Parts: sequence; C-alpha cells; structure tokens
Amino acid sequence: MDNHVVGVLGGGQLGRMLVEAASRLNIQVAILDSDNAPAKQINAAASDKHVTGSFAKASDVKQLASRCDVLTYEIEHVDTKILEELEEEKPFLDGSKWSRIQPSWKTVRTIQDKFVQKQHLAKFGIPTAKSIAVGTSHPQGLKETADQLGYPLMLKSRTEAYDGRGNYPVRSVSDIEPALKALENRPLYAEKWANFQMELAVMVVKTAQEDSIDAWESRTLAYPTVETIHEDSICKLVYVPARGVSKKVARAAQDLARRAVASFPGTGVFGVELFLLQDDNLVVNEIAPRPHNSGHYTIEACHMSQYEAQIRAILPDLAPTIRPGATDLAVPAAVMLNILGGPQPDSHLLVAKAALSIPGAKIHLYGKGAGRPGRKMGHITILGSSVSECETKIHPLIQMVDAVRAHRTDSSPASAASIAATAADLEKKNPPPTPRPVVAVVMGSDTDLATLRPGLTILDTMDIPYEVHITSAHRTPQYMLDFGKSAAARGLKAIIAAAGGAAHLPGMMASETPVPVIGVPVKASSLDGLDSLLSIVQMPRGVPVATVGIGNSTNAAILAARIVGTSEAKVQEWVATHLQTMDDENMEKEHRLQREGWKIYKKLDS
Amino acid sequence: MDNHVVGVLGGGQLGRMLVEAASRLNIQVAILDSDNAPAKQINAAASDKHVTGSFAKASDVKQLASRCDVLTYEIEHVDTKILEELEEEKPFLDGSKWSRIQPSWKTVRTIQDKFVQKQHLAKFGIPTAKSIAVGTSHPQGLKETADQLGYPLMLKSRTEAYDGRGNYPVRSVSDIEPALKALENRPLYAEKWANFQMELAVMVVKTAQEDSIDAWESRTLAYPTVETIHEDSICKLVYVPARGVSKKVARAAQDLARRAVASFPGTGVFGVELFLLQDDNLVVNEIAPRPHNSGHYTIEACHMSQYEAQIRAILPDLAPTIRPGATDLAVPAAVMLNILGGPQPDSHLLVAKAALSIPGAKIHLYGKGAGRPGRKMGHITILGSSVSECETKIHPLIQMVDAVRAHRTDSSPASAASIAATAADLEKKNPPPTPRPVVAVVMGSDTDLATLRPGLTILDTMDIPYEVHITSAHRTPQYMLDFGKSAAARGLKAIIAAAGGAAHLPGMMASETPVPVIGVPVKASSLDGLDSLLSIVQMPRGVPVATVGIGNSTNAAILAARIVGTSEAKVQEWVATHLQTMDDENMEKEHRLQREGWKIYKKLDS
Repeated sequence: MDNHVVGVLGGGQLGRMLVEAASRLNIQVAILDSDNAPAKQINAAASDKHVTGSFAKASDVKQLASRCDVLTYEIEHVDTKILEELEEEKPFLDGSKWSRIQPSWKTVRTIQDKFVQKQHLAKFGIPTAKSIAVGTSHPQGLKETADQLGYPLMLKSRTEAYDGRGNYPVRSVSDIEPALKALENRPLYAEKWANFQMELAVMVVKTAQEDSIDAWESRTLAYPTVETIHEDSICKLVYVPARGVSKKVARAAQDLARRAVASFPGTGVFGVELFLLQDDNLVVNEIAPRPHNSGHYTIEACHMSQYEAQIRAILPDLAPTIRPGATDLAVPAAVMLNILGGPQPDSHLLVAKAALSIPGAKIHLYGKGAGRPGRKMGHITILGSSVSECETKIHPLIQMVDAVRAHRTDSSPASAASIAATAADLEKKNPPPTPRPVVAVVMGSDTDLATLRPGLTILDTMDIPYEVHITSAHRTPQYMLDFGKSAAARGLKAIIAAAGGAAHLPGMMASETPVPVIGVPVKASSLDGLDSLLSIVQMPRGVPVATVGIGNSTNAAILAARIVGTSEAKVQEWVATHLQTMDDENMEKEHRLQREGWKIYKKLDS
Repeated sequence: MDNHVVGVLGGGQLGRMLVEAASRLNIQVAILDSDNAPAKQINAAASDKHVTGSFAKASDVKQLASRCDVLTYEIEHVDTKILEELEEEKPFLDGSKWSRIQPSWKTVRTIQDKFVQKQHLAKFGIPTAKSIAVGTSHPQGLKETADQLGYPLMLKSRTEAYDGRGNYPVRSVSDIEPALKALENRPLYAEKWANFQMELAVMVVKTAQEDSIDAWESRTLAYPTVETIHEDSICKLVYVPARGVSKKVARAAQDLARRAVASFPGTGVFGVELFLLQDDNLVVNEIAPRPHNSGHYTIEACHMSQYEAQIRAILPDLAPTIRPGATDLAVPAAVMLNILGGPQPDSHLLVAKAALSIPGAKIHLYGKGAGRPGRKMGHITILGSSVSECETKIHPLIQMVDAVRAHRTDSSPASAASIAATAADLEKKNPPPTPRPVVAVVMGSDTDLATLRPGLTILDTMDIPYEVHITSAHRTPQYMLDFGKSAAARGLKAIIAAAGGAAHLPGMMASETPVPVIGVPVKASSLDGLDSLLSIVQMPRGVPVATVGIGNSTNAAILAARIVGTSEAKVQEWVATHLQTMDDENMEKEHRLQREGWKIYKKLDS
C-alpha cells in the first residue's frame, strides 16, 4: 500500500494496535523495544528492521531511524534532544524518499512539560485550568501560590507524569508539606482545582504538517466527544458518546480539541482530555501526541481507528486520503473498559474470560504475559444501539474489574475463586442499570391515567423500556417545555402524550422536540372527545402530532412500537407477530362460526 | 486466555485472519506453510512453533501436530489419510491436556468429494441439486445421465474444485465432448442445473463434537443469511443482509445451513453456500469446513468474527462460551468486495488506494506481495445503516475492480493510468445506484396528489429518499395489500398515505405492515374533510394510523422525518434545525412588530 517503513519508539499496547492497523494495509512497522514486546509479537513482517533496546538510548533510536522512512512514538516520554539531533543528521534509510519525525519533536517537547504545554495553549487562546510554576520546594512559595489559586489545588509534576503518578491534591495548607515531600526532586506547578461535572476526551487527527490554529478546520478531524471515568487516576471506562451531554457541548469539545491540536507542528493522532465544568464551559486538561487509551473504542466503533489514522496521517501519500467522515461512529454507541493486572499474574484474565460469554464484547489482550497489579493488560469494547444497552451488557464485567481491584493489594494474593466470589457479591449489591427508556408517556393530569392504562400494559408486554410523567401544558408549562427540550438527548424515540378538552400537551411537546409525538385524545366532559381529537390533530404546518383514535392508548403504544421498530428489529418483529396473531384469532373465529353456525356461536372474548 | 496451541494447515489469507483474531485473545497459533506466508507475517509470538513446509506432506503435518494441542485447516484440500494416521498416533505436544483435529478429518473427507458430500446431505434430508456420478469418461455415459437430468447441466469434478475450477456447464449434447475433455482424468459427477434467483451463504459455528442433525438447535449458531455475487466463478461481492430476501426465507436458509452443519462430526466454523430457487425453495450447493470468503464481513459487521468463532469453537474450554447472539450483526448492513490481482503486480492496489478516501471502507490486504491475475489479494468491507447506503459507498470501488478485470488478460499488461481511465469510463457509464427509499408516499387516487405536493416538496428539501405510488384500497386492493406486505423487507421506515371520504387506504395499509403509517385526511366533496379525518384516525385497537391534520401533507412529511430521525442523526438534526428556524422567524416578526408598531406592520410572507 505504501513502501515507506514506519519506525515506532516503544512497542507496548499502543504500538501493538498500530501494528495491527498497519498490517491490514501491508505497511511495514519497525519497533524499538525489548525482544518480546507486545508490538513485536504480531509483527514478523518487519522482523529484520526491529531494534532491541530502549527509546531512551540515543544509539538505539538512531539505529531504528536508519531503518525507517518516518519515525513516530507510542509514548511521549522520549528524549527530544536525541530527536532534534536526528532531524539534523538525517540518518534515515539510504534511498528513502522522505524522512521526518511525526509529529515534530518540538510538539513532543512542548507537551512533555505540562506547564509549558499549558502556557503554549494559553498563548493560542485555548482555555485551561489556571496554573502557576512552583519554582522552589520551599513550603512558603507554594503557600503563596495557593493563596493566589485558592484551595483545593492540584500540585503536579511538570514532567514524567502519567496515570496519576506525579499528581498530589492539596486540600488545605496542611497538605503542602506532604505534597512537596511526595513530589520532591521534580519540577512542579500548581493548578487551580477544576470543579468539573464530567471528564471528556476527543481524539484528533492532524493531517497537515504546519501549525496554524486558524487553519484548524482544514487540517484536523475530530473523533466523537467521549466521557472518561478514572479510578486510582487511571482511565477505567470510556462511554461513547458522552452520557447526557448535549450535541452543542459535544461539538464545542470537538472544536476546542481541534483548535488545540492545530497549534502543534507535525501530523498524527492526538488525545485531548478536557474538563466539562459545572457551568458547561470546557477547559483542556492535557494533550497526548499519540494514540490514547480514550481512543481504543475507535477500533470497532469508528470508520477508521485511531491507529489506522496515526499510520496514515504520518505518511505523506496517505495523509491527504483521510476525508471528513472517516472519524465518525459506525455504530450508535460503545463502552470501553480497561483490564488492569490484579493480585495474581493471571487475575486479569478473569475479566477477559467473563467477557467471552457476552455477545458483542470485543476482547483485546496485549500479550504482556504475567500481570502486575494495576498494569494495563488489555481492554474490552462493547458496541450497542445505545449507551444504555452497552451499560447493561458491560455491567457484570465492571463488577469483575472491581473485584480484581478490591483484592489488588491483599497481603496474600487472592485466588481466582475468591475474586469471583467478590464479583458475585458485587453483582448482588449493584443491580444492573435499568435500560434507559426509549418511550416516554406523558399526561396533562392524573385523570388521564385511566385512558393510558391499556397502552402502558402493552408497552410492558412488548418489553420496551418506558417512563411515565405528569407534565401539564397549562399547570406546569416550564416543566413540560424542559421535558421536551431534553427528550432527544436522553435517547427517547417516541413520546406518547394524552390530553382532553383543549388538549394542548401533545402539540406543545412536539414544538420543543424533534422526537415523534403521538397524541391520544382523551374523552372530556363534553363533545364525546371530538374537542380533544381536533385540538391534537389540527396542528399548524411544521409541528406534526401523530394522532390516534379517541381514548385509544393501545394504538398509541403500538404506534410507538412501530416507530421504535424502524431501528430495532426485535420490536418490529413483535409488531409483525401481533398483526399475525390478530389474523389467526379472527380466522379461528371464522372457522368456529362455520363449524357451529351463527345460531349457537358464542362470542368468546366477551 | 487459553494455553492450548492451535496448529493451522495452511497460512494464506484465512490463516492470517485466524491469527489476527487469536492474537487479540493471546492464543498461540502455529502455521504450516512457506516461510513468508501471509499468516506468518503477523505472527512472531509462535515463531518457534511454525513449520516451513506444505500441508500436503505427511512429515510436515506431523511436525506441526507435535507442536500443537489442536489442529485445524484453512483449506480442505488436505490429505485426510495423514490426519487419520495422526489421530491414531497422537503425536501431539507432550503434556498437552487435549489433542484433536477439528473439525474431524472424517468431515473433511466427506466434504472433499463433492459427490459424497451431496450423498451425505441427502441421507440427512438436506435438499441439494440432483446429482449423478459419472463413472466413465465415455461420452455415451454422460449422454445417458444428461437424459435423466435434462439440459443444461453442470459437469463437475468431485475433488480439488474451487473458485470455479473443475466445473463445466453442459448446455446441450454438443458440449459433452469438450466438457469431458476439459475435465479429463478427474473423478466426475453431473449436477442438475439449479435455476436460482440468487446465491446465498450462511456461516455456521458448530460448538459440540458429536454429529447429530436432530440436535442442530443446541449445537450450532448461524450468522446472517447473505447474498453472494460470483464473477468468473469467484466470489466478487457479498451483500449483508441478502437484498430483498424476506425474513422468512433468510431464517429458512439459516436453519437449513445449521441442520446441514450439525450432520458433520467435530467443531468449528463452516461456510454453507445455498441456491435460492425461483419458487423460493432453498437447496444447499456446497459446504466448506472452515472460515469462508463469504464470511469476511463478520470481522467488522458481527459481534464475533468467523475467525474468532473458529479459534474458540475448536478449543474445548472456549467453545461453550459462544452464546446465542454472538453471531448477530452489530451494524444494520455491510458489503464485502474482493480485491483480485490484475495485469501488473501492483494493479490490485489501485482498488485499495481508491478505498482509502471512502469513509467506512475497511481495507484488508493479505501480504501476498506481487499480485497475479485473478489471485485473491485482499478485500474491502463497508458498513452502513442500510445495504442501500453501502451500495452507494462501494460503487466507485466496483468500477475500479471491473477496470482491473477488463485489463487482466491484456497481451501487454496495462498501466495504472489506463486502468484508472477505464474505471473513470465505467463510472460514467454506470451511475451510482439511487439510494433506496426509506419513505413511501401512497395515494388512493391521483386527485390526492395536489394535497400531497407540499409534503413531497419537503421530503425533497430534507434529502430523504422516497417513492410515490397510486395504490387504491378500493380499486386495486390486491396491489395495495402486496405493497404493504413487502414494505418492511424493502427497508421503508414510514409510509405516508393520503385518502379522502371513506378514506380506507391508511388503515388498510397499516393492517398489512409493521411499518408506521401516517394518514393524511384529504378534504372530499362534503363535510370539509371531517369524514376523511374520522375514517383515518378512528382505527380499531391493534392497528394504529398516525393521523395528521386535514390536508396537512407538510406535517406528514415532517412526521416521517421525525420517525426516520430516531435512527438517522442527520435527519433528526434537520427537524431540530427546522424547529429553530420557525422560532427564529417568528421572533424576527416580533422584533419587527416592536420596531415598527402594528399600524405600519406588513405581513411579510403573504
């Protein structure tokens, strides 16, 4: 596909998944790492180009460079001085058509020092948490900084910090001394505490060499905005898309991430971690100049994985082929769960083995052999038609992960049996999440409940998750509007609204949501329901209400099922079977009538 | 994940994709093939266990067996005598906990001889095309057989036949001599010509060792029924699910495939090729005891790929973890396109390179190096929300494949430029398929068209593919019912039905389809449309019609968009934007009224 050889500094799980993507494109990837590194295990094609050694050693890096056309990283803790020298020397493969370090070592140098990274972003107008360099390890200096930033604050190492290592929360003045002690001999900075409602992440592909924040729209593509859950300062779960985040905020996060990445020279994939603050504003937390744990889900859930994106973005012939749409989701939703090492060398396999029995759980083990407590050993991605469906499917695996964690620091390492027992206990304590409703049933007054009862009963029969609310157009107008505004983002696919008389609820609801609204006219005190029917059905152009017969909540429920059935095969099958059952029952009556004659025929279902 | 070592006879593309699946589970796979075989290129982890040699050589097979716990195949043209001896000798790895050839060599032996395979299937009541062994190469014998089967018939080699090699169509008596000449020195049989409407295929996973056709429901799982298109007797395209095939037929094909596979001893994945005959009956064409070209799509489109299924099914600890649902689609639709070698060693890369720019095209190149004309070099899978969407996306790639084929046998090999020029010509000649309608608009009489026009215009604006029909409930009742019956299988997500007066069309349509039906009451000669409204909305319990206001086809179209929008984000966004636009426009009027006052205010849109 491309004759350039890609060299990767580091051959861990990210390198391994890069190799997997490159292999499918028949692109050679040479790895610098120890002999049996995860990325080398699945890469015999380039075995004559691998280097046994370390990305921290200049001679090893130079040897790799001499065998490749383009160098990239799977980790940013590389010695950028070596890379700077390399770029000057250009010891790359003889006869190679092109040589470059991607993304630029300058980008890596900026990003390596988190305080410099923040200053860089600030210079380009990218919002970040306020930070102050801590020049000395003397407590008084930090106390003065704390007076500026306020408590709590986060004391952070500027370099070599990842997965929570190098961070220390300072909640009050009494934490200052232990914080400085914990992080002694490291360059430090203090960061204002981000009071976030959620941690988000966006993977960004940069396809053009130059840095220009103004050209972010033409040079970068964003993957979806996802929600990350950290535990022990390590990524635990990634929800795709981020749960309960509006399209507007999700788009703003993508745009911010793209602008941030556009400010760095070089091409490749970048992981951007963000905080969604309480006021719905966004700040960038930090950036990784490489594929990222928060982007593992892209392997199965997106049209192009972050690994394929990295390989293509750093190769000059392939970078321009990355087109808008390539980073889109191929499925509606996904959840990613990390598998960390437990008390025994094989404890983490309990999670992978439990995943085998869950249809749709995609298992990735990294080939690291014996597990160490807390080490990233693999991950699992679950795809689904909604985040809610993914949450239900992954629930037992989270219990197993939590059980492994609970035993991680046991003084005598727990057996598989005791971990499994803990997981079973957790399963009992934490029931699986109830499936998120896809249908809402709303009424203006509780007197309408009697009319709705047959429809609600049918929804139960069909096993469609639903919710029921009293939201009056006239008595709680604001509540009703707010309900409508949030309906689409909450994943509702149909809203059944019952109302009588002036019957405004269905139409008002429809005016606030793009979700289909089904109106059930309730018979009020006069006109036999005709007032309700006409109030509901005769909507102005632009705002339709799907109206059913007077008092016929059964049909409203079945119509909701028909709508849900356009995207959920099982529900459509229920409707088809129901039509067939009605046919069969009627034919049965016909046959009985023919057998018995009309004189002795008795209506059965009366 | 599992400490057993899997040995594979053959290391081509199927072996390579097996290795890919096994690597993710950290299961070791040892390959018997030449040194740089595709499956070895991505498999350094088991490099000490690979064997350099051929699956046709007994000593090589035995060497591989001595290094593994379980042996399997990526090709059925193995010498089953070697395997039979092996099973008696059991020269498997010292200390291995379990040793077996999966699926059984007996299965492979039965399947290798296509005539024996057909007899085997017939014994178990599996329908196949009628076949007669041709005992002699004397033309008179075949003529007598032809008199029994009728012309045309297919003369086939019983063994070593694949990708069309070993088949010869006999259309009349004059073809008999050339057919016998073409297939001389091969064991032959004659097969009744299957007058099929479509070729289907179903991948089946068998998880239990024993053969028992009666236990097919507990021992087998079927992947979806797919449609295969062959060209030059080689699989070219796979459509998932099969286009225009009803759920009933698709299920029947799955069940037939499962029953056929259940009749063979051993575990593993089987590819079952079927013919869908003109009368909608199904016959099994042939079975492969291994992953199959028609199942490549499962890598991206299903919860568990056929390769992971093979690895898991042949390992005794993992086979029971394969649960119902694992073989289901994770996405609504997919299309797979094979990449074959062209005139130049790199002609096939033109297809792969063209695929790079199509978001959602997943490229698999097999690492076979220089291409030979017609050799399988790779494949592309496209995922989509409907087969129609996949067809549109893959269309330019099919033109490129056809261009490569057009030049495949040029006397002087065509350049990349001339192949690309041919592809461009083909693109002009073959416009991309029009997207399949997701909305149907039907009316009882052409007089209703005037009422429907505003709605149709809105559907155009929204870029929703739709179709329009005249289907009267009273004048063409059978046509109307047939239309309703086929609506769901054709991928329609909403039907808009307009009718006036007695207005039966919407309700009748709803009684024949589980698809949501939207009713538009048309004002007839009397009662100002109230007759139409009540006829449409007051449906009996069980058969809902989503009724909109009298004559309001605009609302019918927007309601259809709301329904389609529950599964297509772009359409829902259109509806949301439309609501916002109405809001903005009304606020604009309000602002103008406040600026100008009511006395000089003029209605703008009148």
